[in-house]
Amino acid sequence: MITVFTGGTGGAKLVQGLQQVVAPEDLTVIVNTGDDLEWWGLHVSPDIDSVLYSLAGLLSKDRGWGVEADSFRCLERMRQLEQPSWFGLGDLDLATHLTRTAMLRAGKSLSESTAELARRMGVRARILPMSDHRVSTMLETAKGRLTFQEYFVRERHQVDVTAVEFDGVERARPAPGVLAGIESAEAILFAPSNPVTSIGPILAVPGVRDALRRTNVPVAAVSPVVGGAAVSGPAAELMRMMGWPGSIAGIAEAYEDFLDVLVADSADGGEAERLNGSGLRVLCTNTIMTSADDRRALAQFVLHAAANPVETT
Amino acid sequence: MITVFTGGTGGAKLVQGLQQVVAPEDLTVIVNTGDDLEWWGLHVSPDIDSVLYSLAGLLSKDRGWGVEADSFRCLERMRQLEQPSWFGLGDLDLATHLTRTAMLRAGKSLSESTAELARRMGVRARILPMSDHRVSTMLETAKGRLTFQEYFVRERHQVDVTAVEFDGVERARPAPGVLAGIESAEAILFAPSNPVTSIGPILAVPGVRDALRRTNVPVAAVSPVVGGAAVSGPAAELMRMMGWPGSIAGIAEAYEDFLDVLVADSADGGEAERLNGSGLRVLCTNTIMTSADDRRALAQFVLHAAANPVETT
Repeated sequence: MITVFTGGTGGAKLVQGLQQVVAPEDLTVIVNTGDDLEWWGLHVSPDIDSVLYSLAGLLSKDRGWGVEADSFRCLERMRQLEQPSWFGLGDLDLATHLTRTAMLRAGKSLSESTAELARRMGVRARILPMSDHRVSTMLETAKGRLTFQEYFVRERHQVDVTAVEFDGVERARPAPGVLAGIESAEAILFAPSNPVTSIGPILAVPGVRDALRRTNVPVAAVSPVVGGAAVSGPAAELMRMMGWPGSIAGIAEAYEDFLDVLVADSADGGEAERLNGSGLRVLCTNTIMTSADDRRALAQFVLHAAANPVETT
Repeated sequence: MITVFTGGTGGAKLVQGLQQVVAPEDLTVIVNTGDDLEWWGLHVSPDIDSVLYSLAGLLSKDRGWGVEADSFRCLERMRQLEQPSWFGLGDLDLATHLTRTAMLRAGKSLSESTAELARRMGVRARILPMSDHRVSTMLETAKGRLTFQEYFVRERHQVDVTAVEFDGVERARPAPGVLAGIESAEAILFAPSNPVTSIGPILAVPGVRDALRRTNVPVAAVSPVVGGAAVSGPAAELMRMMGWPGSIAGIAEAYEDFLDVLVADSADGGEAERLNGSGLRVLCTNTIMTSADDRRALAQFVLHAAANPVETT
């Protein structure tokens, strides 16, 4: 049993690699829902969808989000009808949100809706939202208090952030299966996702971080930052805002209370050597996932590292 | 001021013709909403949309419903996700329903939402739903009690109907502007729409039929049946079920308490002659609207007939 914590794009790629090397029934994916949004009246769960599409073989290779070869005719028409259009839902993608929203309105929980969507997409790995309760990642910025998608998509993360909050998280409970997924895992992995706004909301759900601290199984993370910058997105800036270094050292700090193994990119070999030791083992490999081979190789590397947390290379 | 009662396809065509010969600010269109439905969680008003699309120049010429050159990618994906797919919403069409649903959820009434959609589509004629209250046309059939769309689209109106009811109509009130549209009109027209399920629901809204009986201005209807059969749809069968002839005589009977002029197709000249007189004037012309010229010619004919209700041809 392998349990993976993940957010959006980078995480979806690693999960795709893991699917190639782990039997789907042995794979549990715990997904950030802090950047879920109500859009055109529909419940959109961008990170869950990235994982679903990735595992269903539907994820757009060019964009890294949404459905491959999707069209945007409804979106263009919404713009003509003076509706907000900065969040890009494709015509095929829309079907996912319509279906999820219908399930939620019919009384299903988010985790039940996710399981049902996964089944209908032919995805056999277990995909769990972090919580069935609504948690909203909010950012205090130079342009005011923004939701994650307002910050990330509408403002293209080009505004300074002074604080991140997870609205509603104190009342949230882990979704069914999340704590069991931690407790029954043989290894726990953290995908190369932003530790502040992708993994941060999951860790903030009461009980999750404690379960990670308690577990005796190895916990390994793949760094989303390479050479002091995120592979994509604002991870480095947000890490510095949190008072952590905007480098692999920041990842080590973000997860210091439970992390056993950090997988960094070979480009960070020098810093990896400095961080190695004192409870954390840091291993280097290529972490840039361009091809399916890259994804599988990284998945194998991190699984091996997690399975052998005290071995030296 | 011209006020038109209309339902779906045939009505939308006549309204398009009227738009060519009446200034938009002088045109009020009162539309059936008895076949509105909740579809994929969205509020769909098929007859309002046919009128909107028609007047905006967007109506599909081939299909007679929906948007010209629309695609059905979301629908196909919904089918793959095991969602109901017998009601065909196109990708462009979807934007209308998403927008209307968002407006209704934000607290706007159906008439306010319709006016706003019309403005955004550049439609200047006044389009009014028959009521802001929910009225559902229900049909007792050999396959049980069906909504209008279940009967019309899903079953392709190939089941016997034994009764038609308008659920909720006794609590409904005419939408703002409907009674004024009757009272202030210089002429009142009935489009060639099914008198049972397209016009019937409008007439069943408390106060509407009384206002039509009271008015002194001419009331003219275009027959939706030609040669004893509907131009499209199940009008003739439903009229017979109501105990009326399935011919222009049935239209005369359906509207007998307020109709002054019946415009029938030249194919029904014999029956038209028999019906003429005793309070009703029956005039014949081509009522099949294939081209824009046909639509304009019929609009002109019926306007002239209504303006001269006692003239003989």
